[in-house]
Parts: sequence; C-alpha cells; structure tokens
Amino acid sequence: MKSVERSNSSSRLKAVSGQDRPPHKIDFAELKIDALLVSALPNVRYLSRFTGSNALLLITPDSFTLFTDSRYTIQASEECACRIKIVSKGPLEVAAVEMIKRKTFKRIGFESSRISFQAYERLKGTLPLGASLKPVGPLIEEMRMIKTADEIARIRRSVLTNSEAFEKTIGSIRPGVSESAIAAELEFKMRRLGAERAAFETIVAAGQRSALPHAQPTSQKLGVDELLLIDMGSCQNGYMSDMTRTLFVGRPTRQIRSMYKAVLNANLAAIDIVRAGATAGEVDRKARQVLESAGLGKSFVHSTGHGLGLEIHESPRIGKKEATRLEAGMVITIEPGAYIRGFGGIRIEDTVLVTKHGCEVLTPTSKELILL
Amino acid sequence: MKSVERSNSSSRLKAVSGQDRPPHKIDFAELKIDALLVSALPNVRYLSRFTGSNALLLITPDSFTLFTDSRYTIQASEECACRIKIVSKGPLEVAAVEMIKRKTFKRIGFESSRISFQAYERLKGTLPLGASLKPVGPLIEEMRMIKTADEIARIRRSVLTNSEAFEKTIGSIRPGVSESAIAAELEFKMRRLGAERAAFETIVAAGQRSALPHAQPTSQKLGVDELLLIDMGSCQNGYMSDMTRTLFVGRPTRQIRSMYKAVLNANLAAIDIVRAGATAGEVDRKARQVLESAGLGKSFVHSTGHGLGLEIHESPRIGKKEATRLEAGMVITIEPGAYIRGFGGIRIEDTVLVTKHGCEVLTPTSKELILL
Repeated sequence: MKSVERSNSSSRLKAVSGQDRPPHKIDFAELKIDALLVSALPNVRYLSRFTGSNALLLITPDSFTLFTDSRYTIQASEECACRIKIVSKGPLEVAAVEMIKRKTFKRIGFESSRISFQAYERLKGTLPLGASLKPVGPLIEEMRMIKTADEIARIRRSVLTNSEAFEKTIGSIRPGVSESAIAAELEFKMRRLGAERAAFETIVAAGQRSALPHAQPTSQKLGVDELLLIDMGSCQNGYMSDMTRTLFVGRPTRQIRSMYKAVLNANLAAIDIVRAGATAGEVDRKARQVLESAGLGKSFVHSTGHGLGLEIHESPRIGKKEATRLEAGMVITIEPGAYIRGFGGIRIEDTVLVTKHGCEVLTPTSKELILL
Repeated sequence: MKSVERSNSSSRLKAVSGQDRPPHKIDFAELKIDALLVSALPNVRYLSRFTGSNALLLITPDSFTLFTDSRYTIQASEECACRIKIVSKGPLEVAAVEMIKRKTFKRIGFESSRISFQAYERLKGTLPLGASLKPVGPLIEEMRMIKTADEIARIRRSVLTNSEAFEKTIGSIRPGVSESAIAAELEFKMRRLGAERAAFETIVAAGQRSALPHAQPTSQKLGVDELLLIDMGSCQNGYMSDMTRTLFVGRPTRQIRSMYKAVLNANLAAIDIVRAGATAGEVDRKARQVLESAGLGKSFVHSTGHGLGLEIHESPRIGKKEATRLEAGMVITIEPGAYIRGFGGIRIEDTVLVTKHGCEVLTPTSKELILL
C-alpha cells in the first residue's frame, strides 16, 4: 500500500458548513462513532465536491480526508478543499484503515446500504484490534433531501434545459421517425443547451410500447394514430431534472382523451396538496384516488414520485405508505401514469419544489395533450 | 408481500445452455449450495436476458426465477424465457426468501461483491431456520470473460459504430468549439448509427486538461497548438466498445511527436504479445517497459486495460501484477497513456479480441497522430 499524502489547505468540514451547504452537521456523539466512512459517490461529491468515479471519504469531527486513485491526482486537488490521499495500490478501504490505525479511531461508522458485503468483510478483516464497525443509515441522503439555494438553482437550470430540449425537438417529430432517433435528438439538444449528459436513458415509447413504464427506445418507427410517451431528464452541473410528457400522433379517440384527462387530473390534484407538512403518502394517495375514480386504479403500477438532486432517484419516495413529511426545500417529481397492455400508456411528470405553503412547479412545459 | 407468479414456458437453464451462450454451468455441488441468488444486473441480464433496472435471479440446478417489480411486468415476459415473479411490495430479496422457504432450500449462495451489507443483513434476517448464506465470488463475471460468438458479433458492431461516429465527427472539429459540444456531437452520431447510448460519459479533453485521465468535458474551447484527447465508447445491443485517440490542433512540437510515438509503441508492443496463454501482467508490463525506456514510466498512471462486454469495465484487469491467463474469446482494451501536469496527456486505446495464436484488433481507426 503506497499512498501519497498531500494536505490541501484546511481539512475542516468546510463543505458541510460552507455558505451554500445545509446547516446540518454529523453528530458523532449521538451516533456513537469516532469517524464515518462515506462510500456512496453522490454522498462523497455532496460533502467534498469530488466528481471522480472512485473515492472514499473519512470524516471525523475535525477532519475530512478523500481517498482516490492516481487517475484523479490532478482533478481531486482542483475540486476538493479537504485532505487528499492518492492510493496507488489496492482497495481504497485498506488505505482508509491505515489512517484509522494511525489516528487510533475506535468506532467507525459506515454506510450500510452503500457498501458491498465484500467491502464490509475486507474492512472488518483489516481493522485494528479494539476498533469496530457500526452500520449507519442514510444519514447523508437525509441531509441531501433539503436542497440549498445553490442546489435549487442548479436543478432549476437543469429543468429549463430539459424543457427547452423537449420543446425544440417535438416540432420535428414525424411519423416514420424511430424512437431511438427521437431520443438521440433530445439528448443532443440538452447537451447543446448546457447539460453534461442525460440524467437517465431517455424513454421514447411509441404506440403500444408506451404501456411499458420503463421502455428503452428501439428502432420502432412512429406510426399514425398512436401515443408517444417521452420521459427525459438532464444532468447539468451535477444536478438532475425529470419530466414526462405524452403526445399523440393524429386524432385521439375519446378513450385516449379521457384517459389523458384522468392522468392530468391526478397530476394536478397531487401537486395541489404538496406543501411543507404534508406526508409523502398523502400526495401519493391523492393521485391514486383520482385515477381510481376514473377506473384506472389498477393501471397505475408505480408510485407517484421521488426526490431528485445529485441522483435521479433520491429520498423521499412519494409512495402510498410513506410517512415522511415534506419540508420546504425538497425537490420531488409528481408523475402519475396509467398503462394498458396492448393499448398504450400515459404519464405526466413534473419536477416540483416544496415550499412552506405549497409548492412551485419548476417544469415550464405545457401539460395539454400535444398533438403531432 | 403480494406477488403474482406466472410461469413463462420452460424454467430450465435455457439462457446458459442455449446455443449462443457459453457452455459453462454453475456447479452447485462443488459450490456446496442449493440455490444461487444473482443480484448484479449485468449478471442477471447475461443469464436471463432481462434488461430492466430492478431484478434478482434465483437459480437452482433445475430452475430459474426472475424477481422484478410491476413496472416491468410486460417487458420481463417479453424478454425472459424463465419463470417471472412480479413483486408488488417490498424488497425483491424478501420475495426471494419466500420462495426459498417454500422450496426448503438450505444453502443459499449470494454474490458477495454485488450485494450491499444492508441487503445481506435483510436477507439473513428473513431466512428460515436451518437455512444459511454462503458468499460466492465473481462466478458469473468469470463466465462472462469468455465471449460467445453472439457476444463478439455485438461487440464488433459496437466498435464499428463507435469508430464511425468518431470518423464522421473529427472533420468538423475546429478551434473555438467547446469540449462538450464535441462530446455531444460524438454521442449523437453514435446513436444515429445504432447505439443505444454512450458506454460511458465521453471524455473530450483539450490542452492541459488532456493530462486528466478521466476528464469530464467542459465548456472550455479548443485552442490552437494543443492536444485533444477523445475517449469514447458505444453501447449497442447491450455491448460496449471503448476507444481513445489523441489529436493535435496545429503543428505539434518535437516533444509532442516523440511522446506520441512512445505511447503508440507501447500500444503496439502490448498488442503484439496478446494471445491465449499470455498473462494479463505480461501485457501490462510490456506497455510499461516501453514507456519507461522513453522516460515516461512515471507518467503512465493507470493500468494497460480491462475486459469489456455487458459492462465497460469487466475482468480481466490488464494490470502489472495480474496473473490471469488470457484465453481465446476474451475482449480487452489496450490503452497505455502518458500524462504530464500543466502540459497535456496522450492515450491510444483499442478494443482487442484475444485469439488462440494472437489477437484481432477490432478497432479500425488509424493510430497515426491526427492533425486538425
């Protein structure tokens, strides 16, 4: 284990206590730990600003150390204000344990849902005598639920880019174009508008394929008199957006129109009750209730939404039985849908900022049924 | 836990024993297990063909069951020939344990590097009395190292798409274009040529930024008299390709030319010794030795390559101390590089198929220094 230690200015909890970070601190005393090993990359990024693909963060009440490999020597020193250790050989955890030994930390917290069983075993096996591992829940994920002003600004930017890419593309969609060509065009546009990449594989599902809530785009060509479901998100400055719109090529039947109306009503009704203090479950049940009264309860096969930020799926989950209370500063999606096998699916999704007395729908795109 | 059981034709190990799959079988007796729980999604896809984002596979000597959620009801039944269980509530592992209980399996193998500590604990906590968990190494990953004819055909296709996208784009690269605009264009082209998506975030690094081996493209504009490093891969029909080329805008200095020559020689020398029977370590050391004799040993900060297939990084790793013997049918990258901080970096990478007596360089793109 050869590793180069470089101290990069202050190693205090700068990222967490900085102006554009939430006021949360990790309460080591309450957690009964001396140090916390952060292994989930989005959590590492949130706390240290490091954007590389291989890293571990060891946090104590008064220090912050990033472990990464030699591909990232330059990048880490540019991005992070904390101490950086470049690990030239072997797993990063082993290097972290070297530091744990040297500093004689005893109780080491670890992110139990974000570390593999194997990495846990490797950690346990190299830990010095007298030191122990303590599983810690989604602590950093909980901090990340409430977005800072800087994070909200980034999400806003990402949402606008995403909607602009959508609006600049739909005008050129014609029958005969393949799902994948549409997806390629949407992603190209979002990148040209400033996104680093798509937040997830853009879903473009035509005709009966729109009944697959997570369809990957294929070479299937858009026909006439059929539904077209587009679910797309951008990742810009590290932050995600997420939007679904359902279009129709041709003249929709009465059944399509009424199904669309029901999904739109579910979307609007759920948004209407989003506010600080409402539970995630209430929001989901509201959308579900609207679809049930339209006879589409069984066609709504997923939950109403999810948080988003550095990841496309974050807490809170907006599901039927979720007791989490919404708080101002959370950013969530509202995305009811109805799917009928052999017929098609409709989903309408917005990215929404929870505020004290209600919410702000960040997505500016119209929710009227778009006819091509 | 409500889950709908549907038996979808045969539940035998069809995927593994099928014509276009490797002849490997899982030796349950030797592993001392009654069932194997496969949790890594690429492994699930390899064995079942399911391409969704949430799944578990429970395999026994004579059955194959896929667990997924209700978003994938239709898709799973279209893609998989095995038994499918749609889990409408709670973690998939809990549903798998229900089946383990019912079938009274005792010794359950699990993929220890592919399951979180938390999921392991949840599994352990719900397992019936008398049943136990047994960690299993990268068993499916080892099967996946040797590609079938069908997989090689898919990789070939992906490699050609990738090179074509590169060749169709570089003609339009001019000083003043941003790194991200180039990356967007490359990814758009590969998609229009048949790729589902980029295999990874395309790296386009201009000038001094080329010294960052894993640079993300930025709004930085291409200048004159500078290096331009492009590392790109396609994902087509699920299979990856990976290529790096380094270009120069203007007239390269003698230093650039000699550095390029050294990296190219390292690439060629390593390729020259790739064959069934050589070890991964020999290949890496060969590339390293060439760069060392050119005085660039310390500038080569990563390993020489990696396997690829359903994932962009697979076994074997082509690193200095790797003892793995190459076998015919493996597909690996050869990508030596040299990086000098404040100056720039050069990397030349091909995707290579190992054959009995040598190898076939699948990447058709010229390795001469491209001048823009």
